[in-house]
Amino acid sequence: MKKKNNIKWTKKHLLGIEELTREEIVYILDQAENFKEILERAIPKVPTLRGKTIVNLFCEASTRTRASFELAAKRLSADTLNVSASTSSFLKGETLKDTARNLEAMKIDMIIMRHGCTGAPHLLSKCVNASVVNAGDGIHEHPTQALLDVFTIREKLNRVEGLNVSIIGDIAHSRVARSNIWALTKLGTKVTVCGPKTLIPVGIEKMGCRVTYDLKEALQKADAVNMLRIQLERQKKQLFPTIREYTQNFGITKEILDKYAKKDVIIMHPGPINRGVELSQDVADSEYSVILDQVTNGVAIRMAVLFLLCQARKRKSGVKQYEKTGKVA
Amino acid sequence: MKKKNNIKWTKKHLLGIEELTREEIVYILDQAENFKEILERAIPKVPTLRGKTIVNLFCEASTRTRASFELAAKRLSADTLNVSASTSSFLKGETLKDTARNLEAMKIDMIIMRHGCTGAPHLLSKCVNASVVNAGDGIHEHPTQALLDVFTIREKLNRVEGLNVSIIGDIAHSRVARSNIWALTKLGTKVTVCGPKTLIPVGIEKMGCRVTYDLKEALQKADAVNMLRIQLERQKKQLFPTIREYTQNFGITKEILDKYAKKDVIIMHPGPINRGVELSQDVADSEYSVILDQVTNGVAIRMAVLFLLCQARKRKSGVKQYEKTGKVA
Amino acid sequence: MKKKNNIKWTKKHLLGIEELTREEIVYILDQAENFKEILERAIPKVPTLRGKTIVNLFCEASTRTRASFELAAKRLSADTLNVSASTSSFLKGETLKDTARNLEAMKIDMIIMRHGCTGAPHLLSKCVNASVVNAGDGIHEHPTQALLDVFTIREKLNRVEGLNVSIIGDIAHSRVARSNIWALTKLGTKVTVCGPKTLIPVGIEKMGCRVTYDLKEALQKADAVNMLRIQLERQKKQLFPTIREYTQNFGITKEILDKYAKKDVIIMHPGPINRGVELSQDVADSEYSVILDQVTNGVAIRMAVLFLLCQARKRKSGVKQYEKTGKVA
Repeated sequence: MKKKNNIKWTKKHLLGIEELTREEIVYILDQAENFKEILERAIPKVPTLRGKTIVNLFCEASTRTRASFELAAKRLSADTLNVSASTSSFLKGETLKDTARNLEAMKIDMIIMRHGCTGAPHLLSKCVNASVVNAGDGIHEHPTQALLDVFTIREKLNRVEGLNVSIIGDIAHSRVARSNIWALTKLGTKVTVCGPKTLIPVGIEKMGCRVTYDLKEALQKADAVNMLRIQLERQKKQLFPTIREYTQNFGITKEILDKYAKKDVIIMHPGPINRGVELSQDVADSEYSVILDQVTNGVAIRMAVLFLLCQARKRKSGVKQYEKTGKVA
Repeated sequence: MKKKNNIKWTKKHLLGIEELTREEIVYILDQAENFKEILERAIPKVPTLRGKTIVNLFCEASTRTRASFELAAKRLSADTLNVSASTSSFLKGETLKDTARNLEAMKIDMIIMRHGCTGAPHLLSKCVNASVVNAGDGIHEHPTQALLDVFTIREKLNRVEGLNVSIIGDIAHSRVARSNIWALTKLGTKVTVCGPKTLIPVGIEKMGCRVTYDLKEALQKADAVNMLRIQLERQKKQLFPTIREYTQNFGITKEILDKYAKKDVIIMHPGPINRGVELSQDVADSEYSVILDQVTNGVAIRMAVLFLLCQARKRKSGVKQYEKTGKVA
Repeated sequence: MKKKNNIKWTKKHLLGIEELTREEIVYILDQAENFKEILERAIPKVPTLRGKTIVNLFCEASTRTRASFELAAKRLSADTLNVSASTSSFLKGETLKDTARNLEAMKIDMIIMRHGCTGAPHLLSKCVNASVVNAGDGIHEHPTQALLDVFTIREKLNRVEGLNVSIIGDIAHSRVARSNIWALTKLGTKVTVCGPKTLIPVGIEKMGCRVTYDLKEALQKADAVNMLRIQLERQKKQLFPTIREYTQNFGITKEILDKYAKKDVIIMHPGPINRGVELSQDVADSEYSVILDQVTNGVAIRMAVLFLLCQARKRKSGVKQYEKTGKVA
């Protein structure tokens, strides 16, 4: 059963799941339910953030996450500005801090940032007054992905606490895995990570999860399975012998699910899918799969996040105003 | 004389002219007249598609077609999202189908697609509920271009039926030519195609057009001439000896027009023009030329198409709603 | 003391500062003050240009200028369309004139153009009816940058006339320098340019400025110092021996400012800054620096420019309307 809780949201940035309390996570999920309802309307648009400007500062290629944030912003009636690394002043040798402070000086309200380096959004949040949302930093965190994953589990299975969730694949290089482990353990889920030994970081158990190198074991009790994407483009580093061997040991097919998994297990994937590698065709398009629900929920989660951070900004600038003038704005 | 007809538009996608009836083509042209009138206003914007989201999925470089669709969408107050091949997940090896279904899961209403492969938009239309508009697929079709060409002929010459229209250039590799032949023959126009033998596909007559390899013959009776762009970038394949020779045999100059063409012939070109190759400077900027009218009409045609497809979607989801609930939405 | 003046703005294009009168410059600055006030509001958006379409035609990479114009347009509720060289038909060999006339035929109102060639926006303005704004052409002019620089000086020092302003760096290749010299001399400021001999064009004094090759001399009487960016990417041409030598002779540090400059001098920079080259860290972030104010003021200036040019268009098309119909629109 879902618990509705009414906390007072005060965070101005969303940098990672690690920094959030259980209550804050649940609060975002509850807000996202309202926004999901808006998405079902004939005109899925509300004037909530009219006049606000949200910058997508993407320093790594991305279609889906950028699109999801841009659509979330547009459905809240915010103005959006896309800045990508290839066209940005980074090429001219400007520091990240200067780029950010320049954007902010143009009176923008929020920066959605994806960056190849761990901690880039955290650095950003320290040098701007704008709200910063981490849309993926290196192999560190991808908080909105974890939130939409948890939202999807709660939506499909009606709860999160007490469930068994397995995350399967390249755990070592996955910001999705890290953010999911933080989120799920905070909500009382039993998390199992599974993959080849070379792709499971030593000491990952300290995050509160169980480790197995055996796919069957990972599937047996799982209520939900989150299949990570194999980064084929990183294969040069040879972290496992061949793609074929990976697929044989850690790929999921309908046959394997029917044999080892619970009947009503749900299969998740952050996308883009390598069909025939981590997931077979018949699983990707099966009733087990909630992958497209995840995508829809991603927009709802991001609307909730943009909304909450803007609210916090307003409250804070109200306080600031008060400190300066003695009057509430 | 134009015939106004009131059909009930039911098509959810615009994939090609081949699939359209004569009545449907005329209906789009009539609708586009209304939208052209809107474009002439001081504030050329209507709230018709407010809250709708239209994705430009361009997997080939394009300025003018993308801009034309984007402006058409904005003038109807739709939200737009640009996704280009260079930034998209295609790079990460995702299938076209997955990209499309992911976009759709974000609750978008329409995908405008340009793709280098014949049939890509048709494939797309089978795996998404969103409306799909073909903005050019390989050497197959470019339906909105043909519609704007026919609209321009009708606007300038007051009719289409019974006219003689010549299409000159690389017929073999031209989606513009194919879509134009479909559209014009359906509307009762006599179409002549003309170009070097190597660039006229064998059996093209089966589409209902006449073939000539002699520019003068193509010009003599023509009421309208549609000059195709020579794809200089494809010249490596050596389909004709030299550009100079092509121009001498199939390029149009003021002198040639004055000598061989009707006094009131109109010259069209889908752009971008290679000045001095298929058209001389003096023709491109002459009174014969209706090339810029084509560009303006392109926005009107695309507004009409976006509007009609959205209407059909609404009607269909009304039907769906009815099937589920027994109530009309 | 600022003079408020009420001229009737008639210019349809903003191509350079050279073409502006003193009164016109002051008028833009005065208008920008109103728009800056709008930027301070909780919802910094006005419906002034609703339904207008503004195209950013950027044929050179740029983050900040493009972002500044795009935000200015959005805050005036105009629709924007981004066209960059890399995706544009330029690649297909189309002429600039044809690209521009095609964009215009789509019924757009304004083209913001950055181009590597001197005079490109001027050429453009002669072949389109749309308003053209020069966002930087070659090493010629960058008028909105100069306007925002002058606006910032006036804002910080309460006047422009009679002040001493020094511009330091690569004067020869700087459109910022040229536009600033025009603007400042027209407003009665004493301008000094300073840099290595190889980077000061022969005869620059004819523009009405003083030349020195000695940084200390340039600093001594200066009320404002405008530090130009060293184009590291152009260093191949070897216009000065090494970056280190340039920095030693013409870079500004806190120590140098304390020693040679006025106590209340303001330091400006068009960005992006090469920290440690033309400006030391401690100066870039010091109280001397008004660099981020410049960025904010840039949006206000651009809002003013877009607004005034649109007003002029309206007035002109009113006149045209009258000529055609005998009625005032």
